[in-house]
Amino acid sequence: MRVIQLQMQVKETKDEGLKALEASLEKIRDKQPDLVCIGEMFHCPYETSSFPVYAEKEGGESWQFLSNLAKKYGIYLSAGTMPEVDDNGKVYNTAYVFDREGRQIAKHRKAYLFDVDIKGGQYFKESDTLTAGDSCTVFDTEFGKIGICICFDLRFPELSRMMVQRGAKVILVPAAFNRTTGPAHWELLFRARAVDNQCFYLGTSTARNEQADYVAWGHSLCVSPWGEILGELGAEEGILESDLDLEQVERIRSELPLLAALRTDIR
Amino acid sequence: MRVIQLQMQVKETKDEGLKALEASLEKIRDKQPDLVCIGEMFHCPYETSSFPVYAEKEGGESWQFLSNLAKKYGIYLSAGTMPEVDDNGKVYNTAYVFDREGRQIAKHRKAYLFDVDIKGGQYFKESDTLTAGDSCTVFDTEFGKIGICICFDLRFPELSRMMVQRGAKVILVPAAFNRTTGPAHWELLFRARAVDNQCFYLGTSTARNEQADYVAWGHSLCVSPWGEILGELGAEEGILESDLDLEQVERIRSELPLLAALRTDIR
Repeated sequence: MRVIQLQMQVKETKDEGLKALEASLEKIRDKQPDLVCIGEMFHCPYETSSFPVYAEKEGGESWQFLSNLAKKYGIYLSAGTMPEVDDNGKVYNTAYVFDREGRQIAKHRKAYLFDVDIKGGQYFKESDTLTAGDSCTVFDTEFGKIGICICFDLRFPELSRMMVQRGAKVILVPAAFNRTTGPAHWELLFRARAVDNQCFYLGTSTARNEQADYVAWGHSLCVSPWGEILGELGAEEGILESDLDLEQVERIRSELPLLAALRTDIR
Repeated sequence: MRVIQLQMQVKETKDEGLKALEASLEKIRDKQPDLVCIGEMFHCPYETSSFPVYAEKEGGESWQFLSNLAKKYGIYLSAGTMPEVDDNGKVYNTAYVFDREGRQIAKHRKAYLFDVDIKGGQYFKESDTLTAGDSCTVFDTEFGKIGICICFDLRFPELSRMMVQRGAKVILVPAAFNRTTGPAHWELLFRARAVDNQCFYLGTSTARNEQADYVAWGHSLCVSPWGEILGELGAEEGILESDLDLEQVERIRSELPLLAALRTDIR
């Protein structure tokens, strides 16, 4: 399975963000990716005040545009995340995934909102304007099952385990760590989740913008089921291409049978 | 809390192992440690055939010796692990912890036996001669609650989480990774468990012996609740001294409230 992760700058407007994505997909067309991933809040400033303003309903304009892109390029498209508003006016941080025909095959609402207040570091409370989802999300593809969660969701080993126990061999994580948590924990968490769950992890961030309120860490990466970093970008815009050998998942799970050994009878 | 981790060679006989421990405790007496930790199977060759031969009952000769050492030096002693045989002849990989009076305050039987068969790497099946325990182990001290698990137990985030949810602020892990899993996963797993659970982790290994059947990785280490390695040894015998600021646990748990945010309603 050939995956391309696009680490893109968040643009000023939604329209510019969508156009930039289309231009990038055009640029990588010849590489024939099976799956393309982009970052968290890829076309909305990462500010709690912006989320309700930029929010759209499922099936809205951006959704339509992304669905069309997936179909146009014949790819699985993990369209990062965007603010979604429901019929009751609640706003979520939502990831959509489209198949090669442009059909939505997964939708994940961030279940763990990023609420943090680190001494001398980051302050941010998503819960100021967002509502948390309450689902674990795994979907079928021609390559097998894939799971998806969003950024802070990765902090919780329980959610990763749930995805894997539902069959995920690859886990997608649109994300945007920052300059406090990024250097401290970004690689560490991806590598450890991959080792514990013996599957591939693809963390896709937006690119760093020093002028933004929230400065993303970048460093989109691809990690093997043995915890090796197969590829990683820096802070700037970039394209990360990986060919995943999904048979490695079964091989490692049989050599070091962690998942089969997991017990529920320990008291 | 001042902790000293002793990374010691496994000696030829149990008697030599116990004497070497006493000599080390004498040597570090002036450092006035509160807690001393040693490695997995510290006085038994790490071979499945040796476990039944070296095994003793709880309260046996080695146990008595260790209890006396704890009392003599007025320390908490996490006495690594040793093979324990029960009344039915079953053998366990067991960790005992003694308080400053020499009273046993914790006993943990390894719950996840190390059964592995890595292509071109390590083959080892503890379950050939050992029986698994089935408990999560947390105990009280004057410094607060401490958890303990053994080596391969660390592979399973569920067990760490259980210890932490029972109040552990420090987790002791007598262990012996090897030259396949050591470089790949030793630091990674300790750091990630510490970050996920926001507590201190103390991994104490035996020292490397190139002549042994099972060659230990060594690299005893102490990790902070933010995932920093506060100290780490190499492969040889050594002494690692750390002063743990246990207030850091509460501070990090309040700045980045992961444990309080953990949800059980995700489906």
